[in-house]
Amino acid sequence: MEPVERWGVFETRIKGPEDGNPFTGHTLRGVFSCRWEKVEADGFYDGDGEYVFRFMPSFEGEYDYTLYADFLEEPIQGKFLSVPASEGNHGPVRVADTFHFAYEDGTPYYCLGTTCYAWAMQSDERIQETLDSLKESAFNKVRFCIFPKHYDYNLSEPRSYPYEGEPMDSSVLTPENFLQYGNKSKGNRWDFTRFCPEHFRHLEYCVSQLCRLGIQADLIVMHPYDRWGFSCMTKEQDDLYWKYVLARFCAFRNVWWSLANEYDLLHDKTMADWERYADLICRHDPYSHLRSIHNCISFYDYSRPWVTHCSIQRQDLYKTAENVNEWRERYRKPVVLDEIAYEGNIPHGWGNLSGQEMVRRFWEAVCRGGYPGHGETFLSDDGVLWWSHGGKLHGESHKRFRFLMDIWKETPGGGLMPCDRFWSEVCAVPQMSLAPSVSDYYLIYYSFMQPALKQYHIDDVTEYRLKVIDTWNMTVEDRGIVCGRFSVKLPGRPYMAIQLKKADLP
Amino acid sequence: MEPVERWGVFETRIKGPEDGNPFTGHTLRGVFSCRWEKVEADGFYDGDGEYVFRFMPSFEGEYDYTLYADFLEEPIQGKFLSVPASEGNHGPVRVADTFHFAYEDGTPYYCLGTTCYAWAMQSDERIQETLDSLKESAFNKVRFCIFPKHYDYNLSEPRSYPYEGEPMDSSVLTPENFLQYGNKSKGNRWDFTRFCPEHFRHLEYCVSQLCRLGIQADLIVMHPYDRWGFSCMTKEQDDLYWKYVLARFCAFRNVWWSLANEYDLLHDKTMADWERYADLICRHDPYSHLRSIHNCISFYDYSRPWVTHCSIQRQDLYKTAENVNEWRERYRKPVVLDEIAYEGNIPHGWGNLSGQEMVRRFWEAVCRGGYPGHGETFLSDDGVLWWSHGGKLHGESHKRFRFLMDIWKETPGGGLMPCDRFWSEVCAVPQMSLAPSVSDYYLIYYSFMQPALKQYHIDDVTEYRLKVIDTWNMTVEDRGIVCGRFSVKLPGRPYMAIQLKKADLP
Repeated sequence: MEPVERWGVFETRIKGPEDGNPFTGHTLRGVFSCRWEKVEADGFYDGDGEYVFRFMPSFEGEYDYTLYADFLEEPIQGKFLSVPASEGNHGPVRVADTFHFAYEDGTPYYCLGTTCYAWAMQSDERIQETLDSLKESAFNKVRFCIFPKHYDYNLSEPRSYPYEGEPMDSSVLTPENFLQYGNKSKGNRWDFTRFCPEHFRHLEYCVSQLCRLGIQADLIVMHPYDRWGFSCMTKEQDDLYWKYVLARFCAFRNVWWSLANEYDLLHDKTMADWERYADLICRHDPYSHLRSIHNCISFYDYSRPWVTHCSIQRQDLYKTAENVNEWRERYRKPVVLDEIAYEGNIPHGWGNLSGQEMVRRFWEAVCRGGYPGHGETFLSDDGVLWWSHGGKLHGESHKRFRFLMDIWKETPGGGLMPCDRFWSEVCAVPQMSLAPSVSDYYLIYYSFMQPALKQYHIDDVTEYRLKVIDTWNMTVEDRGIVCGRFSVKLPGRPYMAIQLKKADLP
Repeated sequence: MEPVERWGVFETRIKGPEDGNPFTGHTLRGVFSCRWEKVEADGFYDGDGEYVFRFMPSFEGEYDYTLYADFLEEPIQGKFLSVPASEGNHGPVRVADTFHFAYEDGTPYYCLGTTCYAWAMQSDERIQETLDSLKESAFNKVRFCIFPKHYDYNLSEPRSYPYEGEPMDSSVLTPENFLQYGNKSKGNRWDFTRFCPEHFRHLEYCVSQLCRLGIQADLIVMHPYDRWGFSCMTKEQDDLYWKYVLARFCAFRNVWWSLANEYDLLHDKTMADWERYADLICRHDPYSHLRSIHNCISFYDYSRPWVTHCSIQRQDLYKTAENVNEWRERYRKPVVLDEIAYEGNIPHGWGNLSGQEMVRRFWEAVCRGGYPGHGETFLSDDGVLWWSHGGKLHGESHKRFRFLMDIWKETPGGGLMPCDRFWSEVCAVPQMSLAPSVSDYYLIYYSFMQPALKQYHIDDVTEYRLKVIDTWNMTVEDRGIVCGRFSVKLPGRPYMAIQLKKADLP
């Protein structure tokens, strides 16, 4: 058996019955153990009489496994070797230090995501283009859907469906009438007890490709943009879907569970349903991947114990990132702003930010100890919008995120927290600071303000290296060592920041 | 006797005693009457044995007057003729239609103010420069102080003082230590019962010059930026001051009463004091000039009956103009935003807005049915900052206000009100609209958003003339007549607006 790297995917397949309904007729369970852990994971049917068991080893060394299936006369036993993680493989992302994230090997993870809801449902060429764009970008998380998406700018058929059956006739759809075709549309003929493995294998390919690029796959398991009825299945159908998704995807280290996008628009679902799905995740994902749920209008109660981090959509046209402080205090969890509106020029008010405003919102969020998310919605002749289809990036904000990331990564200890010094600045200090009023590190952002001069006084004795940062033009100017009371000349333009780093820090 | 134009200042002087304290020792009262009104107004002592009676006739025609003074053996009687107002004289500004303003002759007044706190205390040359700048501008209101001002960038001695006496030695002041010299500073020697008439005559000159330019004088009667003790006089001293100010200024048609700037920083004053000053205004200003009071942190209760309009300082770094809707509903009075922060580049967070952000705040306020105010705080080698000293305008926003004003003046009926159509636009309709959902006139502003396309549907039948407005580049593009459902291409830049005007409107 081929060795598997730590936090890689071990997979083994067995042949089994094809008669009846193999998706619902059998119980499949793998038990994987080494000296340090013992994990039970569900198997799943992958079509053509093949039953699959997957496992993500969290340690190095020899693993034993036992596969159980009701159709086996006796369990199948085996071994495999877990070898050291390859370069760039830091394990799954976990919550760290209450408000932040780190990979399982302890490397800080600065969440800088983008959204391409239906990128995985596009052509092979478009998917490759998206992966190429992501490779060039600073994004380390992508939000996307398992179900196909029916919404403005994305009315065409997906490349595949999650179930056996036939979709409604989409030739009747126009940009003007599509809203009439909701999740109760007639003409769909699905067998909600028979999955289409190819649909999921393809999604796994996409997740794997993201993993190779070091990008987290923030899987949106349910969503309301639906003309096929996938958002209004029965409780039993939902639970079957959830268990299948969990069994298939949970061994991928880069998977995050987003229970839903705009859960509050899924009018057929109750709070009890969401809590039941969450319970299924907690019971069937033995690796405890990150879990959250994304709102349209009303926040989910992010203080629920199963929620690992906030996954927030802005509630106000003007202020979103500015509320990170409040949300950190309220939920005491990492605050991920998965939608602070998108850079673009479409009519929708959530999709026509300027690049400047997007970058401003990013720096606001970062300097308040939060994690902003990106999306792009530019009208284009080919009808390809990044936020929906992936493809190429057309905006101005994404070009500035590598620069942001490089500065972000300088944070001592891994995470920033807001430091409430003055009302007219956005000041960040490291989360690990014991006394924020005198910290080893300050990142102070001036947002839309354009001071030409600022005065500072941290204390009388500490020497800091001062850097002046133009967050839009991406310049860093080293102004040398400062101490005590000092003044800093600034260019009198918006979007400036300064960094103060204790002179003896590396 | 020279005729006086309607809403002009009739003034007559009599000789009286110079012994004792003429400022406190005598009661002076004029009664002015014509067929349509009978007005009692206080007189005041102007130094050199001269006692002055002023009156603003609100009607045309022959007026009789009687002057009473305790030192007169019998009242003095006289007559004068009030002639038609000259061009540009529309009378004092009044509240109109609950949320708006109009001159007494019914002409709508679109309040577009600026702030130059201490412009009147500068040299003759600077004052003329300020007047020249104002003449070139679209500003029709200036906020400024009667008392001299002690604050950042303005530590020098004023050209005159309101009282007889001597100020503290200001040579000890530096930009670093000035905050230590507050209103309790030692070394001031004033006789708070003896005014310096020259100080007030000069301010009257300034008020008159503004009047000639058609600009309202928003007189700040008290303020906390003080090293001379003018902000911590006794109750009796305050009342004497208020009555003197009222007697001197109330006959000028362009006077507004601002009880204080940042009243909540005048820590020696109680709410009872403010209400007492208000009561003095109501009793001693027979012309009922507009009255308000300006906050630093806490709003005054603008619902008090004597408050004619809100005079608001922003309470949030990011959002101010955006709150006009709420404040209109709360107070049911005109919402004047006298400080939404200033365009400039000083360190203070209230004084370093970009021109774009200032203009954006103006349009936000206007399209929400409010009245935004301007100020400029650019660092300069000569130490002259518009917000304090007047002088020249250096910013970018003021150049865009004539353009705004021209469009504002197209409002049918005189005032705009917010129309809550969609969350991602700022839509204004005329206050007089009966059914805002189908109005004769729409002004729709897109603020920081940059849609390249918008769709509209007012109703199926009304024909509107469509204009596309670039509020920053000051262009208006006539797109002709539209009706029913229609799409509008926009340039995909921020700060755009559209105007829809019923095709048969003039």
